[in-house]
Amino acid sequence: MKSALKKCRPVAGRSALPLAIFLMVIALGDVVVGQTGPLPSWNDGPSKQAIVKFVEAVTTQGGPQFVAPAERIAVFDNDGTLWSEQPMYFQGLFAFDRVKALAPKHPEWKTRQPFKGILEKDMKAVAAAGEKGLLEVVAATHAGMTTDEFAQAVKDWVGKAKHPRFQRGYTELVFQPMLELLAYLRANGFKTYIVSGGGIEFMRVFAEEVYGIPPEQVVGSVGETKLEMRAGKPVLVKLPKINLVDDKAGKPVGINRFIGRRPILAFGNSDGDHQMLQWTAAGDGARFMGIVRHTDGEREWAYDRQSSIGRLDKALDEATQKGWTIVDMKQEWKVIYPFQK
Amino acid sequence: MKSALKKCRPVAGRSALPLAIFLMVIALGDVVVGQTGPLPSWNDGPSKQAIVKFVEAVTTQGGPQFVAPAERIAVFDNDGTLWSEQPMYFQGLFAFDRVKALAPKHPEWKTRQPFKGILEKDMKAVAAAGEKGLLEVVAATHAGMTTDEFAQAVKDWVGKAKHPRFQRGYTELVFQPMLELLAYLRANGFKTYIVSGGGIEFMRVFAEEVYGIPPEQVVGSVGETKLEMRAGKPVLVKLPKINLVDDKAGKPVGINRFIGRRPILAFGNSDGDHQMLQWTAAGDGARFMGIVRHTDGEREWAYDRQSSIGRLDKALDEATQKGWTIVDMKQEWKVIYPFQK
Repeated sequence: MKSALKKCRPVAGRSALPLAIFLMVIALGDVVVGQTGPLPSWNDGPSKQAIVKFVEAVTTQGGPQFVAPAERIAVFDNDGTLWSEQPMYFQGLFAFDRVKALAPKHPEWKTRQPFKGILEKDMKAVAAAGEKGLLEVVAATHAGMTTDEFAQAVKDWVGKAKHPRFQRGYTELVFQPMLELLAYLRANGFKTYIVSGGGIEFMRVFAEEVYGIPPEQVVGSVGETKLEMRAGKPVLVKLPKINLVDDKAGKPVGINRFIGRRPILAFGNSDGDHQMLQWTAAGDGARFMGIVRHTDGEREWAYDRQSSIGRLDKALDEATQKGWTIVDMKQEWKVIYPFQK
Repeated sequence: MKSALKKCRPVAGRSALPLAIFLMVIALGDVVVGQTGPLPSWNDGPSKQAIVKFVEAVTTQGGPQFVAPAERIAVFDNDGTLWSEQPMYFQGLFAFDRVKALAPKHPEWKTRQPFKGILEKDMKAVAAAGEKGLLEVVAATHAGMTTDEFAQAVKDWVGKAKHPRFQRGYTELVFQPMLELLAYLRANGFKTYIVSGGGIEFMRVFAEEVYGIPPEQVVGSVGETKLEMRAGKPVLVKLPKINLVDDKAGKPVGINRFIGRRPILAFGNSDGDHQMLQWTAAGDGARFMGIVRHTDGEREWAYDRQSSIGRLDKALDEATQKGWTIVDMKQEWKVIYPFQK
């Protein structure tokens, strides 16, 4: 809208009426913007102020911190940053539901961990299998499917699965203030990316509809695929082999590989995002590093240094020391989820 | 421009003068478009007609073959499709120049193939080392550098190296008709991508300036990188290990991994592009598969089924059989390179 208005100088009409209407619209627009402004679900606290200040600085043409639109790359972690991640990563819950669905074909899972634990809802046994066990679950439940079949399975699950605490679909558990931040950045010429440890093909199914982030701007962990002909058509089959773990030191690797530019803004919530934040901070010019801090045990969850999921420890220390923006969910967010608006 | 014009209805001024000027500009615009039209360096042959017909079909709102802008993904091979690839892939020549530059530090190369062959300009010995030998050269000359150092080395080389036949910089040896095609597609709402067997970090150095394709839309072969701290700053160091060979069956893998959408238009020139063309063809709705055929031994090079570089054999058979568009460079292109305009 802004650029279209700039390109069209208003021309006075034959009568003054069109001009009057034009000016009224402009005035009304100002009032509306004045009432709501950007980021309406953010209290006018330090985080909102820092965000607006940064965006104004990098978009002010001729200003000392101006950044060309092509270089306005903003990256966001997903789990715990754009949506909740408790009682565990939602993709883990998807994989567990796949285990239950596939169990009749795998009688051996009844006696083998972590499958046994998943089927018996024995979360201690599942946790004991560790990351290696979880990768085994992902490999066993995702591999062999074509990418199209996998996308359909995710779509079906997203459409019907309910979160145990909120009894709502998982994509309803996205953070309203972060949706507003994504939209605000895009309105200011930023290209918004997800850079997550989650599976790239899992997130791409809903990222466009839920976040307005198209598939080609979703970076995540990657599984190997293999081209095969099935029924005379080429398909890509998922293999039980990891190509990229887009977490921790893998995040700068993923950013460089998929985007090829260094972000000027990064938002995370855990130590898994620490290197992405450092990578963003290490560039020249204006930078914004943000951390979503889970401080609201009532409306969401409260956890940080001791959490097994979404542990925030070293990144919190560096954020505090370097003056990065730490968003206090409880204090700074008027609502957490869109359904609370 | 087009969308800006649509948004602003012209308003008649107090005198008729502004309107008259406006109409003159419109009329003049039509004449200019009529004279040059899209794709001015293409003769009005079957390929140009097929391209224009396809673009009009997928951009006609309400038409039976309309494709939403977000799905207008166009992918282009690079070597032999967007620029020349003889007497060998230009990135190979870059690597050879790196061998020469690094040779003083590697006395062992004097007796070891294919390094010996490169230093002595014995191309037979180099060829005898095969693809494995070339990968060894790439690993030995690229590995250990940071991604920033590598990009700088490519930039320096692109700025000064000359092609042996034309005595011009390599980025001058891009195909003028293909530059026009890229621009024409983008003007019609397409997102243009490179999908090449070449190195992703090599191409990203010049793709934006030369082709108008930003780094995040360049897909290529990928080497592993590792995050390290050097002088207190995080850097990515190139490792002598391949993550993705973005060629042949690797092209659909790369497209799915980096873009996450199936292209509706693909252009290649060799059997290395065959699976990318098949992958594009296998989607629903309107599709365009194009092959640049090197038929011009005078202005460029003439080669196909027997060539060691850019062999076009099986893809040519399928293209002929399925009625894909085969561009005859000699017959259909008025000029090959921009400097011939």
